[in-house]
Amino acid sequence: MNFFHFQITHKAGRARTGLLHTPHGPVETPLFMPVGTQGSVKGLMPRDLKEIGSQILLANTYHLLLRPGPERVRALGGLHGFAGWRGPWLTDSGGFQVMSLGHLRRIDEKGVVFQSHLNGDLVELTPERSVAVQEALGSDIAMALDECPPYPSSRAYLEASLERTLRWLERSLKAKTRPDQALFGIAQGGTEADLRRRSTLETIRFDLPGYAIGGLAVGEPKEAMFRMVELSTALLPEEKPRYLMGVGHPEDLVAAMGLGVDLFDCVYPTRTGRFGYALVPEGRLNLKSGRHLEDPRPLEEGCDCYACRTFSRAYLSHLVRSGEMLGAVLLSLHNLRFLHRLTEGAREAIRQGQYGDFARAFAERRFGKEI
Amino acid sequence: MNFFHFQITHKAGRARTGLLHTPHGPVETPLFMPVGTQGSVKGLMPRDLKEIGSQILLANTYHLLLRPGPERVRALGGLHGFAGWRGPWLTDSGGFQVMSLGHLRRIDEKGVVFQSHLNGDLVELTPERSVAVQEALGSDIAMALDECPPYPSSRAYLEASLERTLRWLERSLKAKTRPDQALFGIAQGGTEADLRRRSTLETIRFDLPGYAIGGLAVGEPKEAMFRMVELSTALLPEEKPRYLMGVGHPEDLVAAMGLGVDLFDCVYPTRTGRFGYALVPEGRLNLKSGRHLEDPRPLEEGCDCYACRTFSRAYLSHLVRSGEMLGAVLLSLHNLRFLHRLTEGAREAIRQGQYGDFARAFAERRFGKEI
Ligand SMILES: [Zn+2]
Ligand SMILES: [Zn+2]
Repeated sequence: MNFFHFQITHKAGRARTGLLHTPHGPVETPLFMPVGTQGSVKGLMPRDLKEIGSQILLANTYHLLLRPGPERVRALGGLHGFAGWRGPWLTDSGGFQVMSLGHLRRIDEKGVVFQSHLNGDLVELTPERSVAVQEALGSDIAMALDECPPYPSSRAYLEASLERTLRWLERSLKAKTRPDQALFGIAQGGTEADLRRRSTLETIRFDLPGYAIGGLAVGEPKEAMFRMVELSTALLPEEKPRYLMGVGHPEDLVAAMGLGVDLFDCVYPTRTGRFGYALVPEGRLNLKSGRHLEDPRPLEEGCDCYACRTFSRAYLSHLVRSGEMLGAVLLSLHNLRFLHRLTEGAREAIRQGQYGDFARAFAERRFGKEI
Repeated sequence: MNFFHFQITHKAGRARTGLLHTPHGPVETPLFMPVGTQGSVKGLMPRDLKEIGSQILLANTYHLLLRPGPERVRALGGLHGFAGWRGPWLTDSGGFQVMSLGHLRRIDEKGVVFQSHLNGDLVELTPERSVAVQEALGSDIAMALDECPPYPSSRAYLEASLERTLRWLERSLKAKTRPDQALFGIAQGGTEADLRRRSTLETIRFDLPGYAIGGLAVGEPKEAMFRMVELSTALLPEEKPRYLMGVGHPEDLVAAMGLGVDLFDCVYPTRTGRFGYALVPEGRLNLKSGRHLEDPRPLEEGCDCYACRTFSRAYLSHLVRSGEMLGAVLLSLHNLRFLHRLTEGAREAIRQGQYGDFARAFAERRFGKEI
């Protein structure tokens, strides 16, 4: 039985719309995936996520491996049974967090050893273990363990790590047992065009159900990131979904969708919401500022989210300035809805064959000038 | 036009059900009122409160006076327009928080002077100013400024403060201008039966639309508190609503409803939820404990709240132990629903003339023995 199928429905230049079928239903692309680090999108109930148009959630293997542990999640029906979100889930491999959270103790051919931030235990994560943990979590889409070099890294290190990532991908595929879970491979290569090309071409030889563009959004210049995205989507097979990891700024989504990227994830909309910022077409509103305290307008005129339908900027600013939890909740809700509306608008523009107009209109509101 | 009307619908012994009509709709009594200190019940959206059966919310004048300020709230339509809860609101006088939060600088016949915890400013609160602030906030029910002595206090202080509270009540009534806002008086007297009696009898001479039993739940023995409640409800006029301030433990509600109390408020259900506890018929579940991590059951079998309909104890415990905001949100939601179901059950029992059976059944589950 084929649990996964990606179907391209419309194209406009390099941009495209698609339907990614998963064991827990189809998701429409291009799409932003909210991050539920510990199996919960911070402060938001699954029904609120559903209401704003979330279609698939991401959970972090690193966090769930340490707490509550993959076997507990499996016993409670996997993420779908455990976390109250019955739609599709994607899990990362755990590798990025091991490396970025600074708990890494050793990395070698076998895998990584890290120290738990909870109790100091040394924990080993190999490609095989990452697959086993993600199979216990039961996500619809799993990511193969990769080595994601920081920016900047030497060419020698970028080359060694992309080769190792390929060997790990091969081991991941051998370890895989669940037919109802797709394994995506991750291309690396930093911002070196030839290495990125080599990594991408070697990765697609595995003929996987989907591919991620990894190792970007780690501090490199935006322009270098987009050169790599452009190069990658030109090489990646048309008929497979492309996932640009860790990217969630609205202007980056618009640019990357134009280059044919289908999936995105980032903590940005929820984190910036908790910090008191609301995403709006013109940029960000800082609700910590006193200048919104008498403003009766919604965060964004025309937004259909509960926060915009119900509350003024004045009230939301009051909540943020008072440290009220509901402020973080409502700004997170709006910010995710903002990104969902952005990808909905992009899908509609692609269907109409007018993605260029869409991107220009976005940029005009945002920057007050043509792209 | 008579904006307020209290209608007793059923009686069972001293317990009674009623309908309290307000400018923003009727509320059924007996009833627990969730506390929205800064105009927000911590972490919960107004629509979630409506879903679980909340009928009237309480806001704290002390906090809203300091931030965002009463004129800002008035300009945005009062609490009803500002905070997204279109049903009735009750505001306290601000006095309790001035005294309990330790910012009091001076108290004399004129009123109280306190230091703002936000910027150190000295702020004066008089009976007249408390009424004016509450009129700006636009609550349906306002409370007259009272002096609430700590426990224990000398008889001399209790006596002086109850007399002052009566003079402040008289000034409050003179200051009142809004016909669409009810002013409740607050009886004091500590746990001295004769002083409590005197305060209650003097207060009801003002023929107010409702009366609060104040100065209790401040550290005195439970048995002394209930002697005072019993004495108070025997003296208070049958046809007016009675509000026992600051009481929210389930067993206290059951006892006080049996004595004819109609309204309650307390931060307990939301605060204990933020601390990781769920109210259940048998007591409290400590979700911080590791022993729930594999428990697939809901917090409470038969509870109809979203948390119980959707999530296991295992997941909620995981959220609490991981410090996830959603844990606090969902436990607060369940705990408020628990108290709302408790008063709904009480109302039904009173309608059936079986409040004694209701109270016994509650106590049997809670304490495993007859009352
Ligand atoms: Zn919105
Ligand atoms: Zn519940």
